[in-house]
Amino acid sequence: MEKQDRYQRGWEKLKEVDGEGGKRVIESLQDIAPDFARYLIEFPFGDIYSRPGLDLKPREIAAVAALTALGNAAPQLKVHIHGALNVGCTRQEVVEIIMQMAIYAGFPAALNALFAAKEIFKERDESGKS
Amino acid sequence: MEKQDRYQRGWEKLKEVDGEGGKRVIESLQDIAPDFARYLIEFPFGDIYSRPGLDLKPREIAAVAALTALGNAAPQLKVHIHGALNVGCTRQEVVEIIMQMAIYAGFPAALNALFAAKEIFKERDESGKS
Amino acid sequence: MEKQDRYQRGWEKLKEVDGEGGKRVIESLQDIAPDFARYLIEFPFGDIYSRPGLDLKPREIAAVAALTALGNAAPQLKVHIHGALNVGCTRQEVVEIIMQMAIYAGFPAALNALFAAKEIFKERDESGKS
Amino acid sequence: MEKQDRYQRGWEKLKEVDGEGGKRVIESLQDIAPDFARYLIEFPFGDIYSRPGLDLKPREIAAVAALTALGNAAPQLKVHIHGALNVGCTRQEVVEIIMQMAIYAGFPAALNALFAAKEIFKERDESGKS
Amino acid sequence: MEKQDRYQRGWEKLKEVDGEGGKRVIESLQDIAPDFARYLIEFPFGDIYSRPGLDLKPREIAAVAALTALGNAAPQLKVHIHGALNVGCTRQEVVEIIMQMAIYAGFPAALNALFAAKEIFKERDESGKS
Amino acid sequence: MEKQDRYQRGWEKLKEVDGEGGKRVIESLQDIAPDFARYLIEFPFGDIYSRPGLDLKPREIAAVAALTALGNAAPQLKVHIHGALNVGCTRQEVVEIIMQMAIYAGFPAALNALFAAKEIFKERDESGKS
Repeated sequence: MEKQDRYQRGWEKLKEVDGEGGKRVIESLQDIAPDFARYLIEFPFGDIYSRPGLDLKPREIAAVAALTALGNAAPQLKVHIHGALNVGCTRQEVVEIIMQMAIYAGFPAALNALFAAKEIFKERDESGKS
Repeated sequence: MEKQDRYQRGWEKLKEVDGEGGKRVIESLQDIAPDFARYLIEFPFGDIYSRPGLDLKPREIAAVAALTALGNAAPQLKVHIHGALNVGCTRQEVVEIIMQMAIYAGFPAALNALFAAKEIFKERDESGKS
Repeated sequence: MEKQDRYQRGWEKLKEVDGEGGKRVIESLQDIAPDFARYLIEFPFGDIYSRPGLDLKPREIAAVAALTALGNAAPQLKVHIHGALNVGCTRQEVVEIIMQMAIYAGFPAALNALFAAKEIFKERDESGKS
Repeated sequence: MEKQDRYQRGWEKLKEVDGEGGKRVIESLQDIAPDFARYLIEFPFGDIYSRPGLDLKPREIAAVAALTALGNAAPQLKVHIHGALNVGCTRQEVVEIIMQMAIYAGFPAALNALFAAKEIFKERDESGKS
Repeated sequence: MEKQDRYQRGWEKLKEVDGEGGKRVIESLQDIAPDFARYLIEFPFGDIYSRPGLDLKPREIAAVAALTALGNAAPQLKVHIHGALNVGCTRQEVVEIIMQMAIYAGFPAALNALFAAKEIFKERDESGKS
Repeated sequence: MEKQDRYQRGWEKLKEVDGEGGKRVIESLQDIAPDFARYLIEFPFGDIYSRPGLDLKPREIAAVAALTALGNAAPQLKVHIHGALNVGCTRQEVVEIIMQMAIYAGFPAALNALFAAKEIFKERDESGKS
């Protein structure tokens, strides 16, 4: 079953990246767009993140970079800051990536992402995560 | 000399990332905004890229990701595709990062960056670079 | 009176699209930029929306699409989700348009707009609107 | 075969929207990212465009609206101006949608899309298309 | 005649800002969207630029700043670089504004606008303008 | 000491623009990215704002214009609305700049910035500032 495969594979991958945050997003879509919840698991995680050519750590570095630079997707940036830390980035590496975005997208984009990271770090401190 | 230090350190770092492309940009700024050429060496490369917390390879992954997602800076994306390859990314890794951006910024952003990468790969083939 | 015409025509059109939301915006501009309130009625609604070449339903489809894709104008997106429903789109059509935006602008833009739609649908449920 | 289904269904849908332009894009991806060509058929066209809740005409109205507003994806905007005309929009409707985008994304975005439309209309005149 | 007034007033104002560039844009819209050409004169120039609260020089500073920062409207940025110089900005002031945009929108946005300015300055040198 | 110079000069300049807001931002970065706080003082204020070619008033006009147009940096827009008023712009001038941005970036960007300005004006009324 290809369909089952993509979904299953995507779900496993999403759990590696940010199981809790991912589950919350998926659940909150059930009453309005359940198919979109499925696509979200299948395409980004079942197709792209499951490809062999790049490890999860550089993938999360790329995600944090892009979402910081775009500057209009705070909830998703937070999911991927968790994700980056969950797949092996240190907090300092996350901070370095965000600071670097000032070069390509300006200081406001970097500042707003640093404040998002600060929130996430505090949240993780409170639940004893690195 | 702090001033001299930042400039010197930035110039060395820029040469590691994309010496040729970087030099062309710096030269083309001399008649219109020579100070901006200096800032471009000092802040992005002398300050940010020279920080110890993140290697050049993840930095270039972050640069390619952000510039692909922003979608309005083709010349700088090309410089950093060269940069990514110069600091140790494989072509496949560059392609993987760009494809992943379809998730955060849509298919057009990823498509346009893939066509930019295709151009760069051809250029590098012609000059015998990996 | 041309001036009076554009204003009157715009105001009528705005009422068809989202009378309540529109009125709130217009009122909240009175103390800071009353002329901008007038422009907002005259140009978008008196000039553009009043043109004969396109019905209100496709105009609201286009509005929801654009505001979802831009991703940085949540209050205006909400006004136009109301507007789309007011001029004859079904909730499912609104959800379809928003999901489609994942293609051009990425999953975060579509996700954030779906959550905005969810809020609007709840609000309309509570006041007995379709 | 689900996999085969999505691809087949997507390819049929892409041909309805813009067979020629679509084919050109798919072919130009073969040497650099053949999997991305496949995803482009499967997700946007096999999953989203094939959904029953919205006809192709409003889908293409939404596509032209979003790509005009984003303003950084000229090649894809051109594909979807062709697409809109291919699935039943009149040229005047395309022009109306683009003009409306001045409201949400400013006059430059609308102007640049009008010039893209002008090019496409000329191209279609030369090949005898409506 | 209010309608005549806005148009007339807008046209006069557009001529002060960039008569040549403006005329070219207006003419190129005649066969595709003549009403949009009229709106472009009436709203931006007849309504906004004609307001008494801000002189043309700060208005053109604001235009160059915004179009540099947005980074996806090169033709309009060029019109307003001409405009800024036509209403009394020096070339050095234009360069200063553009360089400052690196702060809010990143170095690529500023670089691409500097190269646009370089082109405009050369064009003006060739026709003997300041 | 060049390093000391840039920092000192930047800090003085930041105090002229928005001492209170600036100080709050700098302090809130201390636990997460103290070096970024330093860069924020050194590059934007120590390098760019300290250049002789453009006064603080046109610099703040350019800042308000760009941040309004970008539409995804509300906290920084608010700092620079304060900044514009602190360096000599009238409230009416700030409102004029923001309204003008509807031309380049659409009505939603201008509306959201007008509501930010309204908040800042109220805050300043309460603390007796012009």
